[in-house]
Amino acid sequence: MKEIYLDNAATTRVSQAALQAATNAMVESYGNPSSLHAAGARAAKLLKEARRTLAGLLAVPEKELYFTSCGSESNNTAVFGVAASQARLGKKILISAVEHPSLSEPAKLLAEKFLVEKIPVDSRGAVNLVALEQLLDDDVIFVGLQYVNNETGLIQPLTQVGELIKNQAPQAHFHIDGVQGFGKLPVEFKKWHADSFAASAHKLGGLKGCGLFWLREGARCRPFIYGGGQERGFRSGTENMAGICSFAAAASEACNKIEQNTALYQSLRERLWHILANKELGAVAVSNFTACSPHIANISFPGVRSEVLLHYLEANGIYASSGSACHSNKSGASPVLMAMGLDKAVIDGAIRFSFSPENTLEQMDFVAEVIFNSVVEIRSLMSRKH
Amino acid sequence: MKEIYLDNAATTRVSQAALQAATNAMVESYGNPSSLHAAGARAAKLLKEARRTLAGLLAVPEKELYFTSCGSESNNTAVFGVAASQARLGKKILISAVEHPSLSEPAKLLAEKFLVEKIPVDSRGAVNLVALEQLLDDDVIFVGLQYVNNETGLIQPLTQVGELIKNQAPQAHFHIDGVQGFGKLPVEFKKWHADSFAASAHKLGGLKGCGLFWLREGARCRPFIYGGGQERGFRSGTENMAGICSFAAAASEACNKIEQNTALYQSLRERLWHILANKELGAVAVSNFTACSPHIANISFPGVRSEVLLHYLEANGIYASSGSACHSNKSGASPVLMAMGLDKAVIDGAIRFSFSPENTLEQMDFVAEVIFNSVVEIRSLMSRKH
Repeated sequence: MKEIYLDNAATTRVSQAALQAATNAMVESYGNPSSLHAAGARAAKLLKEARRTLAGLLAVPEKELYFTSCGSESNNTAVFGVAASQARLGKKILISAVEHPSLSEPAKLLAEKFLVEKIPVDSRGAVNLVALEQLLDDDVIFVGLQYVNNETGLIQPLTQVGELIKNQAPQAHFHIDGVQGFGKLPVEFKKWHADSFAASAHKLGGLKGCGLFWLREGARCRPFIYGGGQERGFRSGTENMAGICSFAAAASEACNKIEQNTALYQSLRERLWHILANKELGAVAVSNFTACSPHIANISFPGVRSEVLLHYLEANGIYASSGSACHSNKSGASPVLMAMGLDKAVIDGAIRFSFSPENTLEQMDFVAEVIFNSVVEIRSLMSRKH
Repeated sequence: MKEIYLDNAATTRVSQAALQAATNAMVESYGNPSSLHAAGARAAKLLKEARRTLAGLLAVPEKELYFTSCGSESNNTAVFGVAASQARLGKKILISAVEHPSLSEPAKLLAEKFLVEKIPVDSRGAVNLVALEQLLDDDVIFVGLQYVNNETGLIQPLTQVGELIKNQAPQAHFHIDGVQGFGKLPVEFKKWHADSFAASAHKLGGLKGCGLFWLREGARCRPFIYGGGQERGFRSGTENMAGICSFAAAASEACNKIEQNTALYQSLRERLWHILANKELGAVAVSNFTACSPHIANISFPGVRSEVLLHYLEANGIYASSGSACHSNKSGASPVLMAMGLDKAVIDGAIRFSFSPENTLEQMDFVAEVIFNSVVEIRSLMSRKH
């Protein structure tokens, strides 16, 4: 049975270009980039090239870019690092109600020493700008917000948020969790008045275990891992060369094909939705298609529990998810969908389909057919039970 | 020109077995181990197998093992995590005077809130047990010590240190930085009365960017990276599958051949030293061969600056270093050799040769010949200048 992988927001297969770059770093250019001999110099050259590539894609100076071990480390670095650089405690930290746990869990921990408030979101999952404006004042030291939500694909209004912060709380550090946005949508740090940005290699065809952290020069943020002084003293530890080289290769591919991939994802989403929107199925688009990145389509089948339908899909070689991978082993409804104020039946039946350039329209036809038949069968079984 | 790589304490080439394991994790079993579908389950199976393998090699329960991004992160986790789990500040943290910066730098930072003291070392670099005994009291919360020093190979007397801690400061957490020891020497956590242990994949044939942290069940240590709750909530972030699988494969190879590799390293070191110990050269063994792990041989040529000799070696395809890779871009003498109380001329002329199973006796003959000729030439040039 051929596998159809529609869980690319959880992680991606490593791309051919990324695999080649990683293999070269493991076998040929295996030196420690801090070593002064030729084996080290070869690695240092690869490291420099990878940084230059990624800095170019983000349109930032190379010296503002730091490699980390994952998007989670980058988000932790932002919130813990900004908090630790504060001379006084008791100040305000704002994050949205739909953030990834790698931002919301550190914030929860900091609530011992800071006032942590959540920015409410509307029914699409977008931050409520009026509520944000009321929260922003002289005491705010940090605002943390996703570019693209990992469960719905919702694109946050970063330009408007950045303007509000600049006007109402110019002292605040504006951190953007770009893990689901980088490589899918353009980044515009200046327009957003951003201070830092997190991204991850494995969401766009690179290795798991490698992230990046952009920090605007002059922004105050304490380092997170201390030691040998790698990454200009900001992030110690021997550089993850295979991960970093794979990241640069994969991000180049993704960023150079944003338009092409966006068109593909839109057509995949439309094809899937066009078939599933049949009245008989009662499907609900949890993702607001006009406000969401098209690589994520969250669709619910109320009355059919997502884990049951996912089981039917898996039996047909189709892999999707009910939400974020890291939440998948936990009980309880998705905090993101709850914050959006959705009905329980919609939340319980929500399935996230997330695409990569490897997916095709033909796959969507097959997936829709399997879903159609499965939902009909599940409902028929349920009605017989009652 | 063939390269002779003698800087394996800085990093190693990825072994064939490790490369295969990493490639499988990148291409075939590319899922997110937290995903519930079959692609995730394949990754979760690999993750479980890797943890079982490494737990077996360390003779600890699987649930006490956590994967991290590097040895530095593991050391940071130990010292920051134990400090953060303390109810009261002002207590004592002890580390030796020859620790790696990933332990000594976090300790330096904690000196804002704790009393940090350095355990002095003797001329071999071993901790002074009498001094340690005097430092150990009811206020000590943490003792951090290397298994094997990264610059000299000195093996610390962990059993005696552990006994002293157990008797004089049983409340203290005993952390061992095993980055240079794991895979080279046996580990005996119970005999050492150890509470935690750090190791790194890339020092023994695995990928850079992957480490492990063993934490004894019941030992108090706060997590370091917060988020999706991976690693049973202790270390969030999608698991670095390529790194973890490579680590298990490489560590198995290394640990199963400890005796064989030790014999090889001893013969390499003896061959090299036998030729270099010629009176004319005036070489000094910085590494005390009876107290050091044989995979590291630090040898000094007083009067010949190490950077000059390393340049001659490199011109002949021989790669060694003057000390740790992360110190190589910094000015100033090695803090490790200074703590040992060595003469400045010995420190300035010290070169670290570090071996892997790929090195041969024939290489040692060639290396010794190059060193001999180079030292004679450098001294001759120097005497002409004066």
